[in-house]
Order: sequence, then C-alpha cells, then structure tokens
Amino acid sequence: MTSVLNDLFDYGLKIYQDNEKFKFSLDSILLAEFVDIKPSISNIVDFCTGNAPVPMILSTKTDAKIYGFEIQDSIYKLAKCSVMENCLDNQISIYNASISEVLEYLLPESMDVVTCNPPYFKYDKSSLVNMDQEKAIARHEITTSLEDIIVKSKYVLKNKGKLYMVHRCDRLEEIMECLRKYNFAVKKMQFIYAGNNRDAIMVLIKATKNGNVGSLKIAPGIDVLKYKSYKNIFER
Amino acid sequence: MTSVLNDLFDYGLKIYQDNEKFKFSLDSILLAEFVDIKPSISNIVDFCTGNAPVPMILSTKTDAKIYGFEIQDSIYKLAKCSVMENCLDNQISIYNASISEVLEYLLPESMDVVTCNPPYFKYDKSSLVNMDQEKAIARHEITTSLEDIIVKSKYVLKNKGKLYMVHRCDRLEEIMECLRKYNFAVKKMQFIYAGNNRDAIMVLIKATKNGNVGSLKIAPGIDVLKYKSYKNIFER
Repeated sequence: MTSVLNDLFDYGLKIYQDNEKFKFSLDSILLAEFVDIKPSISNIVDFCTGNAPVPMILSTKTDAKIYGFEIQDSIYKLAKCSVMENCLDNQISIYNASISEVLEYLLPESMDVVTCNPPYFKYDKSSLVNMDQEKAIARHEITTSLEDIIVKSKYVLKNKGKLYMVHRCDRLEEIMECLRKYNFAVKKMQFIYAGNNRDAIMVLIKATKNGNVGSLKIAPGIDVLKYKSYKNIFER
Repeated sequence: MTSVLNDLFDYGLKIYQDNEKFKFSLDSILLAEFVDIKPSISNIVDFCTGNAPVPMILSTKTDAKIYGFEIQDSIYKLAKCSVMENCLDNQISIYNASISEVLEYLLPESMDVVTCNPPYFKYDKSSLVNMDQEKAIARHEITTSLEDIIVKSKYVLKNKGKLYMVHRCDRLEEIMECLRKYNFAVKKMQFIYAGNNRDAIMVLIKATKNGNVGSLKIAPGIDVLKYKSYKNIFER
C-alpha cells in the first residue's frame, strides 16, 4: 500500500490517504459539521472511522476525548499515522477493532456522542465480484450492519446521548424503523443535494437515545456543489 | 356564514371561501401538485377535503373521477358550491361524511389514489378554549386521527395504490411508523421551506399500499416564499 499525505479539506490538518484503496469522502466532512458541539460533551466515539477524518475534524471544535474504531488493518494504519502527524494522539485514540468488540474498549453508557459514516449498501455477494476487498468492506455491510451500529450505539451512549449518522436516502425508512426499535428518537435530519432540482443524494440523521418522539426538525438542505472545487474529496 | 368567491390560485377556477371560518391553504396546492398523475388513474378520493381545492386542482390534470369527504356541514357546502360554480359536478362528488363512514360511499380497494391534507395537531382540549369549532376541527384531530386516515386509505386503495399526504415535519416519525404498521412503503418525500437557511415547515409524503421498502426518493425542497405575492392563500 502506498499512502500519500493530503490536506484534510480546509481544517489545517493533514490526512494519510491511499489513492487505490481508501480516501475519505465529503460525507465525512458533512457528518462532522452536522454534530452539535456543546461544552458538556466529554466523550465521543466514531464507528467505521476509516482514516479518521471525523475524529480529526471534531478535534478542531471540542476538547472531548475522541475514540475511533476501524476494522481494516491497512486503513487503521492510515488513521493512526494521520492522528500522529497532527499531534492529536492525546485527544484521539484509534482502535483496530470491529464495532462488535466495542465494549472491550469502552465502558457501557460512557459516551455523549456516537458518529458513524457506515457502509451504505446491503451485502450482496454477487455484486462484489470485481471489487477490491478494502473498498467492499468500506461500502457494503460485510463486517457490520445498520442494526449492529444502532445496537452498539445504544450500549455505549449515556442516557439521552446522541447518535449522528450519514446514510443513503433510500434506506431512510429502514433506519427510522430500526432507531425506533431501539428507542432512539430522531431529532434532526438534513438532506444533501447535488444541485438544484435534483433528488437528495444523502441524509444526515441525529437521534437521541431514550428521547421523546415528536420534535423532529428538518434543517435546510445542503448543496454539495459548493464543495465541487475541492476535487480531492469530491471524487470517490 | 358569509362566503366569498375567490380565485383558486392561478388554475382558472373559482372557490368559495369563508374569511371567518375556512379558507384553503397553500398546503393544499402543494399537495395537489405533488400527486403523480398517470393515465391509468381512474379513481381518486380526497379525505378532509375542506372547500375542495385538491379535487378541483386535480381536475385540471386528470379525467379521473374524484371524490371528496368533508365532515363539517358548513364547509361541505362551500365545497359543493365551488364544484358547481366550475361545472365540475360530473367529475367531482363531494360527500358530507366522516372518514370513518367512507365504506358507505366507496367500494373497498376501488381507489388508485388517496390525497389528504389532514388536521395537523393532536387533540388537546386545553389548547382549544378560544378557538372557533370549525377551525378547531380542521386543525386538530378531533373527528379523525392520523391512524384513522391511514387505516381508511388502506381500505379504499387498490393493491399498490398511492396515498399522498401533507403534514408537519415534527410528526414525521409517527407518520412513518404508522405507515409501516399498515404495510405502506414511503416512495417519495418533499420538504417545504419558508426561505433559505430555515428549517422545513411541512413535508409531502407519497406511500404505496403493500409497496416494497427501500426505494424512497427525497425530491428537491420547495421554497414557499415564491408564492408570497399570492397573499390570499398565504395568510392562514
């Protein structure tokens, strides 16, 4: 694997990428920007952290301790090196572990916030024949699933803790049904569009553990074309 | 009751209104415009039809037979007169009946489309002390409820028939949960904003009876400020 050191958008941070295997996406920036940062937040965990763009961006906004979980060894190494490169290793801890192992690393009900940019697609073996294994695991629910992420979020979040997720709109019903199943209430959603007069491409979701249903807000839409000049992050 | 004859937006139709008791709202125009009209549609029913703006707007787009249900006698009369005024009584039938009586008027599984601009608020007796009864019934779930509307829609819709609804965003979780309960799949949503950088004020929802979950589309947001010059419909 040959990694390169890129700018992390305009945050004044550097991030290790692998042009062949794994690059962070705009979705991670939008997810990090979607998090409501409050002084009371002391512990944040980022599931499916990749090369750690979300923990690093959040470190520019909060002094909270931030944990990242990445199951793939080669991508974990990119994350680890990125954190070191930016001298963030006092604030950010990256674990090379799956979400199912999270309680071996974190105490139950210890987190204020969970963030997750998960694999977007259901696992369909037939569609993955020609795909690189690293890319397949990052994009498809091979080693984790939507339900697994929500269950593990419930384990690690404090009562009334917040789960922030970015996902595909076509899975929104399933996401909302699963959140209700585990007693999360959706508090905020924001849709991501690529240009006027086009359907949304993604959705950002904020849900509260053991929250009360009935106060959902839909924030103004985001048009990602304003990020288009940042070619480095726009290409997937 | 003193009624006046107004323009129905820019559809070239006239509509009877009562400035004190009941005027149609922009939400009804947006709901009617949200309906996907296909040549195969032969029967449409509009629940909570008010003074029948939705049936009348739809009549400009389809030759389907359109039925409207309005429980309040005084508002039903506005609807009936409006339909007559526009010579639409061959296409549109208005019934002075509650949604719970719908099967006394329509055959089960006979409709291609249900539309509904329902009462938006849960019934809270304490908040209605100073409100006119007609307005209270139009705005609060006194004579019907979200679940009732969805159940009766299921009764009258053909298999794979479409339910179109406009509602408040803060009730979206409840709406989606109730739709799932009765085996509707949400196929399209569109959020209504009043200006840039503000939260959405309303949501339009299209759901298919016995549809498959997983193909939800989020249409481009609508900014209602473009309708602002039509003062007649903007004031509630």
